[in-house]
Amino acid sequence: MRQTKILMAKRTIHRKAQIHRKAQGFRWEGVDELPYKEDDRALFKAITRQVLFSDPDMHAELRYFEMQPGGFSTLERHEHMHAVLILRGRGHCLVGSEVKPIETRDLVTVPPLTWHQFRATEGEPLGFLCMVNATRDKPQTPSAEDLAKLYADAKIAAFLRSEPDSK
Amino acid sequence: MRQTKILMAKRTIHRKAQIHRKAQGFRWEGVDELPYKEDDRALFKAITRQVLFSDPDMHAELRYFEMQPGGFSTLERHEHMHAVLILRGRGHCLVGSEVKPIETRDLVTVPPLTWHQFRATEGEPLGFLCMVNATRDKPQTPSAEDLAKLYADAKIAAFLRSEPDSK
Repeated sequence: MRQTKILMAKRTIHRKAQIHRKAQGFRWEGVDELPYKEDDRALFKAITRQVLFSDPDMHAELRYFEMQPGGFSTLERHEHMHAVLILRGRGHCLVGSEVKPIETRDLVTVPPLTWHQFRATEGEPLGFLCMVNATRDKPQTPSAEDLAKLYADAKIAAFLRSEPDSK
Repeated sequence: MRQTKILMAKRTIHRKAQIHRKAQGFRWEGVDELPYKEDDRALFKAITRQVLFSDPDMHAELRYFEMQPGGFSTLERHEHMHAVLILRGRGHCLVGSEVKPIETRDLVTVPPLTWHQFRATEGEPLGFLCMVNATRDKPQTPSAEDLAKLYADAKIAAFLRSEPDSK
């Protein structure tokens, strides 16, 4: 019982501190800016992550990812879905076999087990919100065989070479 | 088995159609703009809702609410939480006993069972994203006694009269 009270008090304090968090541009009060992943294979470039909402009572999390001009997110797939809203800038995304130009406020749905990647244009940063289930599987990165299959599609190959408009 | 195949095909078709949805200002392709609620008591003013992401495989939904200048959302509370990111404009919010000025990109967390309301300034629309659990309880609106308690706080009373800066 005492334990419960302490936990509730902690939860209340924790929440009270963060009812309103001000934005300064695309950084948020009390939110750490993190490198995208601690993964030495570096299948991504110039991208950071901020976790905007994550709470034991919420069944999903809202994160903000930002890529510097020319940067890109990891090429990956997973069972869980991504619900993405572009918050800043423009670029291209690959979802399955589709390569699409993306602009501020566009919505992108990444279905289960679908290869996907986001790439910023050269001219400006690309930032997006990404909603995911709080409980989710780990991302898979492509094997050599998976990559060969992706590169076999000329449109996808151009995207992966950061030349999505060359075709 | 056949049933499963049909369901999977339907799911695929449904998803394929909405991998990328373009924004036109603060309206989205394939997303209906809905009145906030079908409730005759009209405890809100000049607000619409667009459901940006809702999927059986996602444990939360992402909605966009927009209030015209001077409009406001329902004063309510519920067990489920709200995770809010201001996408457009400015205004004030009430969360529990706190009244805060809010601006584009600010974050607002509404804890469980906490009275809350969002109000647009007179000058411009206020739009915000709101993440909620897909499975959630119905909102409660204040009783006369609840309202009396809220109005007993001068800061909250000023907010409810759309005069949050008058004190």
